Amino acid sequence: MTYEEPPATVDELGKFGNVYFDPTAYVHYVPTGTFPEKTMLALAVFEPVSEASINKGGHFEGEQIALEIAVKGHDQFREAWAYFEFQPGHKASQAFAKEKCYACHVQHAADDNVFVQFYPILRGVKASKAHP
Amino acid sequence: MTYEEPPATVDELGKFGNVYFDPTAYVHYVPTGTFPEKTMLALAVFEPVSEASINKGGHFEGEQIALEIAVKGHDQFREAWAYFEFQPGHKASQAFAKEKCYACHVQHAADDNVFVQFYPILRGVKASKAHP
Repeated sequence: MTYEEPPATVDELGKFGNVYFDPTAYVHYVPTGTFPEKTMLALAVFEPVSEASINKGGHFEGEQIALEIAVKGHDQFREAWAYFEFQPGHKASQAFAKEKCYACHVQHAADDNVFVQFYPILRGVKASKAHP
Repeated sequence: MTYEEPPATVDELGKFGNVYFDPTAYVHYVPTGTFPEKTMLALAVFEPVSEASINKGGHFEGEQIALEIAVKGHDQFREAWAYFEFQPGHKASQAFAKEKCYACHVQHAADDNVFVQFYPILRGVKASKAHP
């Protein structure tokens, strides 16, 4: 989004995704470069909104439409990582089938099932480990 | 960004902006609806990147290009809020002139110089205060 005149129009929009990383796991990841057991990452998905207040271009986050959680646990999950989606007002969720999330994460994620390549903060940590 | 086929093309892109709110101020804001003295909000700005890894549409955050900080302090600043920009590798910054940031914030921000209208989490808090 911007307060200046918009540079272009967009015919159809995607969604915003905020990824949160639990602080305990982060504190472990920075010095070690590994995700500890019980690591959780949360993906909050928001509708894009453009016309509101003084915004003149781009988009900001409107209504939240999804909350997805990745959890690491060798004791709890056969594949070490499991993926959940929480609906508004629901406190429980069943893990997605292996083919739904895990298969893509294990194949394409830059570090231990986590899409570090898309996250600037973790990308910096990983790069510092690769080139000390 | 999305893993699916892209819905549209974009001729020219804006930037991503992540806004962070310091935890102490957040804990005060939720029950009271007011920003305490020493509140800090940080705006981290990132270049958009699209073609990388398995991403097929939309954009994710590339290089960080700016870090701006808003600070509340009636004792320190004549207008209660001051705005700073930190360059990479620099630990100090002079506050922007009143006309540069403050003037727009005081006129258009939804709550006490903070653009709560653009932040889903704070928007929810403010709405709950307005309609208890």
